[in-house]
Parts: sequence; structure tokens; C-alpha cells
Amino acid sequence: MSANREIHLASRPQGWPTADNFRLVETEVPTPGPGQIVVRNQFMSVDPYMRGRMDDVKSYVPPFALDAPLDGGAVGEVVASDADGIKVGDTVLHGLGWREYALVEARAARTVDPAVAPLTAYLGVLGMTGLTAYAGLLDVAAMKPGETVFVSGAAGAVGSMVGQIAKLSGAARVVGSAGSPAKVERLRALGFDAAFDYHDGPVKDLLGAAAPDGVDVYFDNVGGEHLEAAIGAMNLHGRAAICGMIAQYNSTEPPAAPRNLALVIGKRLTLRGFLVGDHGHLRDRFVADVAGWLRDGRISYDETVVEGVENAPQAFLGMLRGENLGKMLVRV
Amino acid sequence: MSANREIHLASRPQGWPTADNFRLVETEVPTPGPGQIVVRNQFMSVDPYMRGRMDDVKSYVPPFALDAPLDGGAVGEVVASDADGIKVGDTVLHGLGWREYALVEARAARTVDPAVAPLTAYLGVLGMTGLTAYAGLLDVAAMKPGETVFVSGAAGAVGSMVGQIAKLSGAARVVGSAGSPAKVERLRALGFDAAFDYHDGPVKDLLGAAAPDGVDVYFDNVGGEHLEAAIGAMNLHGRAAICGMIAQYNSTEPPAAPRNLALVIGKRLTLRGFLVGDHGHLRDRFVADVAGWLRDGRISYDETVVEGVENAPQAFLGMLRGENLGKMLVRV
Repeated sequence: MSANREIHLASRPQGWPTADNFRLVETEVPTPGPGQIVVRNQFMSVDPYMRGRMDDVKSYVPPFALDAPLDGGAVGEVVASDADGIKVGDTVLHGLGWREYALVEARAARTVDPAVAPLTAYLGVLGMTGLTAYAGLLDVAAMKPGETVFVSGAAGAVGSMVGQIAKLSGAARVVGSAGSPAKVERLRALGFDAAFDYHDGPVKDLLGAAAPDGVDVYFDNVGGEHLEAAIGAMNLHGRAAICGMIAQYNSTEPPAAPRNLALVIGKRLTLRGFLVGDHGHLRDRFVADVAGWLRDGRISYDETVVEGVENAPQAFLGMLRGENLGKMLVRV
Repeated sequence: MSANREIHLASRPQGWPTADNFRLVETEVPTPGPGQIVVRNQFMSVDPYMRGRMDDVKSYVPPFALDAPLDGGAVGEVVASDADGIKVGDTVLHGLGWREYALVEARAARTVDPAVAPLTAYLGVLGMTGLTAYAGLLDVAAMKPGETVFVSGAAGAVGSMVGQIAKLSGAARVVGSAGSPAKVERLRALGFDAAFDYHDGPVKDLLGAAAPDGVDVYFDNVGGEHLEAAIGAMNLHGRAAICGMIAQYNSTEPPAAPRNLALVIGKRLTLRGFLVGDHGHLRDRFVADVAGWLRDGRISYDETVVEGVENAPQAFLGMLRGENLGKMLVRV
């Protein structure tokens, strides 16, 4: 076997990360111990939440360690196994991306069938990304048929799923925001009833025009001005599922906060943060629904694929800048 | 009968209201039409939410009209009736305070028994105030036994009920904030496990010391710095019932907003605004519980009573400044 290459966190970013915060390290390809497997990663996921783990702050997800490989969702082929139930040649989904070869506890890997769906789907539309959209919209925000849904960061991996699942689940109107005219055009093609480029004016005004009868459910990927505009636009008993606040992940100042928060009282709004890990009980229903929609061609997904583990930091930085359409992936 | 005196809204306050925003007006004592009664008000309630109704903004509770009497909860004796089922001499609870004599639709009045509880209790501990505390704590925030509860504005009518109901419902620890040493002392006497004067330092630090193991339920009457501190202190899956934000009712600047709102994601927090009117289905359970606790001497309540309808504006302004202990009432 060749040497293993992996990406380490070299230093903690202050504000926006740069290439200098990462280091490409060559190591030996590991050998599995009892109950372990070695996976040759084929694809890995880069996701916004990883930015938070680069800070050394107390949180319910531990921070990445310095001078050690980063981690995150990955899928690949088993090249060595000392575990019952998983054999060389199997394809597995696991949590140790950011490296070419991963030494994985077999109980932390899940075999998947590459004949059923493209490998990348297990990281995206049928994986954590899809479940995040599904659980946030239907469980956390409890969207009901006939409602109006607004999703920010709608051309991203999660956002584009939220909008399509909302339409397929009976939403009367789905509005999305994104960061470029091309993304806005893509949202319309995906079936969004209205979409806007948030650079085109105050979000408050753009949202008011796109959702003249108000918003019942807000799926927040962005925070800041988007959240304030959504609170202002929300109807009585509106619900916000707070999934991410990418607008402030790289801020070194205290972030802008919604100055209209008192509206939650008179409008009886609910704002609820969530992590997909709490919603695993929905996985079977989610897979059944989304696999069906995919089979029937009723759901589409975009992927932006960067080649080579050495370019994973650039893929991550590009995603933070919004250069991806749909799911950002690295072909390892 | 003598003339009727009532308080009109003379002008809309900009920032803090003043006596000039109110006008004492003499009118004739009304005569009931079919289905109506005339009530000689004995007590009326002044409440923080009334400040919001003095602004001419679109809301789900209509604003007070200029040059017309204010309104709000009141209790008094029926002095004339042209309605079936309510007779002269009955005592009724209704929504037309801020005047000596009220012309009330009989269907908007509820007869109460002055032998069962003091008249003022129907406006406070057994009325809207008590139900607000009960519903917000047990329904909106779904407090469970063993949890830690933090309530701001805890020496007010609602806050002091929240703390006591929490203890009686099995809270492990109840913490309150208030605005003077005397109020803090009163909270300790009411059974709060810890209490602090928010003037004594950053709320974040005071709350951290009072609730070293964090907060599971936050009952917000204040907003602003209190809400930010509570979000910071909340434990995984914490819930905030947002009842009021008195800190910003008189602000002419955009209010301070919680800069740490992104914590709702990792901690999976829920922030939920509510109005007591949505929780009428709890009334029977509430009355049974609270009447029982009162009978057994397990719950106490404070009242601050101002004499004379002509002093109702001063009572209202004093409440906004925190001069009341417990429920602020006017003996009409």
C-alpha cells in the first residue's frame, strides 16, 4: 500500500480560517486491531458545523484537537478487517474523513450498498444532510400542509432538501434565499415558489415581497439579518428550526442579534435549535420517503466535488464562502 | 348615582410614559341595554403588557384608542342589570377597568364568589396573573420535577407565582432575580432557593453563582441582558417561556438582543413566546391546584394597592419602575 495522507488542524482560526490553519501530513496506512477495519475513503463531506469545532470552546460536540486529523462523514471501501460482519471489499459509511485511510471501530461503521444509490448520496441526500432537512422541517418545526416555509442558505446541501421536502409534504409556498443569481435560478428550477439573492437589498424587504402573506415555518441556516427578518415576517404560532448560523461562524465581533425578539410573545413564536443526532428515530421513515422520491424523480440534488484529500481545506473554505452548489464533497 | 370617572389615553408615550399621556375624564354613569350590566368597579389591575397597547403598532392585541378609556382586568359589584343570569349585587370579573362604572356585555363578565377568596385574588393569584405563571411554567416550558428554574422579575405578580408553583411542582432549585434588596429578601421568604438583585453585577455572573449547575427552565419577564444570561446558563434541551420583556418596553432604541443566540443549536434550546389567552384549557386544573395550595397555606402572594381611579396612571408608572411588590392593583 501507499502512504496515508491526512489533514491536521495546525492552528485554531481567528475569524475566517485560512489554508495556514491546516497541514497535510503523511503517515503510515494503519493496521486493524480486533474489532477494527481499515477503510480507503472515497468521498468525504465538508459541512458548516465543522467551523465551530475548530474553536476551543466548551460545547456539546468536542472541539477538534490540534495537530491531529480532522474528522467528519466519509464513505469508502474496506481494505482490511479484523471484525466480524464486515469484510474486505465492503463499502461503509463512518465518521473519520479528512484522510485517505481510516482506522475505524467496526461498530462505528455502517455498510451501505453502492448498487442502491451513488456513494455520495450516503453523505448527502440519503445521509446526515437529508435527515437534517427532514427532521428539522417535519419534526422540529412540525410543518403542516398549506403552510408557507422560508429557508435561508437554500442552495446549500441542507437548504435545497428542505425546500423540496416542504413542497412534497404539502407546503403552500416555499421561499428560499441564496447568495448569487445562479443559485436563485437553481432554486426556481428545484420548485421553490420564490427565491431571492440576499445581496439585492435588506432581507426584510426581499422576504416581505417573496412571502406577502407571511411565514409559518422558518428553517434557519444563516442567522443574523435573516433570522431577524424571519421573526418579523412570521405569522401567529410560527416556528423556526434553527439549524445553523453560518453568517456568524467566522465573526470575531459579537454577532448581530434579532432586535425584534419581543415579537415572539405577541405572535407566540417558537424558536428551537436542533442537532440531527437527536432525531435518529426518524431515520427509517426518512429513508423510505426520500428513497421513494428519488426513485420517482421528484427530488433533485446538487453536488460540488473537489478532487484530492490535499484540497479538502480549500473545499471547506470554499463552502464557507458559498462557492458550492448543493453538497460540498471531496473525492479523496 | 354620582358621576363616573375614567382614565383616557391622551397621547401615545414616546419611550417612558408620563402622567401627561393620561387624562381623567368625568362622564355619566351608563345605563344598561339588553344583555348588558353596569358594574361599580372595586379593584382594577395594572399590568406590564398594557404598555405595548399604548403604542400604535400592528399586533395581535389591538392598541388602546386615543381619547377613549383604557381597559384591563377589573372586579366589582353589579349596580344595574338588563341581562338574564346576572343580578344587582352580584360580584363580577370583567375586562373594563380604568373607570369607576363599566358598561359590560353580560356574556363578557364572569360572576365570582367574594366569600371564597378576597376580590383581589380574582385579578391576581386565582386570575390571569396566576394562570400566566402556571401555564408558562408547566405547559409552555413543560417543567419537570428535579429541574432548575430561573425566573426574572421574580418579585412581580407573575414571577413570584412562578417560583412558588415551581417548588410545589417538584423543581430541584428555583432562582429569582429582582430589583432591590428588599425584594430579594422577600423571594427567599417565599421559598426561592437563591435570589439576586440584578443591580449587583452582570446578570451572567450573578446567575452563574446562583445556579452553578445551569438552568433547565427560564421564565422570562424581562428580556435583554437577562435573556442573554439565561441562554448562556441553560442546560442541554433547556426551555424558555417568554412571557414579557419589560426591560425594553420603554426603549426608543433597538433593544439589546442576545448575542449568544447561536447556543440554541448546540444546546438544542427552545425559546417560546406565549400569551395566557391561548391556555384557557388549563383553567380548571389551575384553579383546583392553586386554590388548594392557598387553602393549605402553601402559597403566598403580595399586593401593592393604590387608592382611587385618579391615581391609576401613577400605579401603572410605578409598576413599570418596579415600585410594586407582587400584584399592582388600584382600589377604584
